Amino acid sequence: MHNLLLKNVRPLGGATTDMLVRDGVIVEIGSIAEQQGVAVEDGGNAIVWPGLIDAHTHLDKTNWGMAWHENNREAVLRSRIDYERENRIAIGLDPHRQSMRHAIGLAANGASHIRSHVDIDTTHGLTLVEGVLETREKLAGIIDIELVAFPQSGVMVMPGTVELLDEALANGCTVLGGIDPCGIDRDPKGQLDVLFQLALKHGVDVDIHLHEAGELGAFTMELIFERVRANGMQGRFGISHAFALGMNDYLRVGKLIEEIAELDIAILTTGAPSATVPSVKRLREAGVRVGAGCDGIRDTWGPWGQPDMMDRARIIGMKNAVRSDIDLRHMLELVSQGGADVMRLDGYGVAVGDKADFTLLAGETVAHAVVETTPRPAVIKAGRVIARNGTCIVDMP
Amino acid sequence: MHNLLLKNVRPLGGATTDMLVRDGVIVEIGSIAEQQGVAVEDGGNAIVWPGLIDAHTHLDKTNWGMAWHENNREAVLRSRIDYERENRIAIGLDPHRQSMRHAIGLAANGASHIRSHVDIDTTHGLTLVEGVLETREKLAGIIDIELVAFPQSGVMVMPGTVELLDEALANGCTVLGGIDPCGIDRDPKGQLDVLFQLALKHGVDVDIHLHEAGELGAFTMELIFERVRANGMQGRFGISHAFALGMNDYLRVGKLIEEIAELDIAILTTGAPSATVPSVKRLREAGVRVGAGCDGIRDTWGPWGQPDMMDRARIIGMKNAVRSDIDLRHMLELVSQGGADVMRLDGYGVAVGDKADFTLLAGETVAHAVVETTPRPAVIKAGRVIARNGTCIVDMP
Ligand SMILES: [Zn+2]
Ligand SMILES: [Zn+2]
Repeated sequence: MHNLLLKNVRPLGGATTDMLVRDGVIVEIGSIAEQQGVAVEDGGNAIVWPGLIDAHTHLDKTNWGMAWHENNREAVLRSRIDYERENRIAIGLDPHRQSMRHAIGLAANGASHIRSHVDIDTTHGLTLVEGVLETREKLAGIIDIELVAFPQSGVMVMPGTVELLDEALANGCTVLGGIDPCGIDRDPKGQLDVLFQLALKHGVDVDIHLHEAGELGAFTMELIFERVRANGMQGRFGISHAFALGMNDYLRVGKLIEEIAELDIAILTTGAPSATVPSVKRLREAGVRVGAGCDGIRDTWGPWGQPDMMDRARIIGMKNAVRSDIDLRHMLELVSQGGADVMRLDGYGVAVGDKADFTLLAGETVAHAVVETTPRPAVIKAGRVIARNGTCIVDMP
Repeated sequence: MHNLLLKNVRPLGGATTDMLVRDGVIVEIGSIAEQQGVAVEDGGNAIVWPGLIDAHTHLDKTNWGMAWHENNREAVLRSRIDYERENRIAIGLDPHRQSMRHAIGLAANGASHIRSHVDIDTTHGLTLVEGVLETREKLAGIIDIELVAFPQSGVMVMPGTVELLDEALANGCTVLGGIDPCGIDRDPKGQLDVLFQLALKHGVDVDIHLHEAGELGAFTMELIFERVRANGMQGRFGISHAFALGMNDYLRVGKLIEEIAELDIAILTTGAPSATVPSVKRLREAGVRVGAGCDGIRDTWGPWGQPDMMDRARIIGMKNAVRSDIDLRHMLELVSQGGADVMRLDGYGVAVGDKADFTLLAGETVAHAVVETTPRPAVIKAGRVIARNGTCIVDMP
């Protein structure tokens, strides 16, 4: 925990001021003189914004910094899953080294928190989780990492996976994942019953991948609603992707969103450019907690993505037909406060009493900052400058 | 026209070699010794690719480099058009200065050719065209600019516009534009008959903006097909955006594409993230000429975009669900050869006899180069290095 006097910054894009941090907490905002034992950083009139949050990614998957991975394989979800599982170690995808690169990249670009799904399957057991846990330890004080025990290869179709999820939740994973109970598992009742059982046993939240589109995804959502209600899991369930909410049926989607809001289910979006995605504006208007994430970046699944939540804010904004300054600000809120709402972070913000996790943003206004592609002037974690102009104080391995 | 010996490059991602340029033309490819009077450039083993082509943009519209333009106005096409027309001069949008910035940005990022629509309306007459023509002259030898006489505010709904288009085609514009004959003009027969008349009179090609979606756009396309056939305009008509081809009716779209291919109509796409867009893969399979463009960047219409065709290749690729190396290469071809096919450029390519307009690309492979966001190591126009690492030899005004 560090002390810092940050001079000449504009909190949330407001008037220029100074911020004083003691022991990693913001203790004063205003015109502040230099003090003994307190490092001084000139913010150069940049906007200061709470640390960005990647609330949906996969730290164990990226090829970042490795030789280019050629991919001319078929574009089928099940094939991608199986190819990755069977080849990841052979192609040199070390979960610790690669998660270090991915997480350091995110921190360098302004992120303070990550929720990472990590593959758990009967081929690798918990070794991928262990690699990411090592990264979490090494990057303590640089970026916070929350691990989701993620049954990427399926639950019911992969006997032995339930036991591994159980073990993972006792050993470092604090959220339970799931995946397409119909599409991947071919047994929606089976997977969902198991997920709720495990979540209740360990007292953890659930965050399920739901790529299922249209009526299929809506059906799975209804099964989820029934179980959230029956098990009193209101406020503790998240649906990632939720492509069904992008279907072209305004009234049907409205009904689903109503239940999502009522059950306080969180939605995690990546703004997937080629899929039907939920309208972030409609979700916000309904009072739903919405976080955002980069998902996988440059991995065996596909070549796209950057470890940069500002890049993601732009992708989500373009997909959501955002044009106005007000809506651009909403995109920035999605990749910050939105993730904090999903992860239930304490002391998140740039007010007195909040933790000193923030990033400077280049831009005349908040809207301008969203479309600017220049690096973040500086990133502060727990009161310490941990990155400048896109380069983190920790080198990528 | 310049001489240049480009050492250690990989044409189209192939084996490393040297290229010799004399008087702006590639005269030899192979292992070549230094020669008197010939500048030497070490390509550092980069990929060399024909100059990128922005085949659909608006040089007269961008706010690039100006104070941030706040925009919380309603998101209605007609309102955007009217706001821009009535306020562009008042907010300081000088067509020459801004088109310089936009075009220099494109050149710095690897482009050698631009097709720019330029607004023609009864408020500004041809003054916007004149500003962009001045830019074209000043940037001769840096980047080639083709002007489309573009009736942004409509043709039939703006009496006096036809005469201005006629004048523009006699004074520097070499392509005729048009816009939503139903949506904007409310008189599809009226506008299309006028466009064909003017095009035949001046012997120019047509490139029409067609945002009309679904069956409305399909109807307009059918009116276009009838007139292309009746007037013998095969191979000389282009449809920009063509959102109707993104409608969710596989067979109907197939029929439209068949006619487009038969009449050799070109399609120009921007991969608009929030619209229904044509499948570039399906168009290619049908043998249709397809170019790509950035469209407006950071203007009174909206905040998005970069003057960078590699950024555009990524946007189009993500929207088109591209994942494979083969398809990534196609994205690069769209923003290069695709534009050349639309603009019917002579001597385009990186073979002996071609004009020495090319860009170096950073990346191990062509696919890798598409997803890399690092600047182009160098850009060559007519045998001269006109940009390095994202900075053009001509400063932005
Ligand atoms: Zn995911
Ligand atoms: Zn346009």
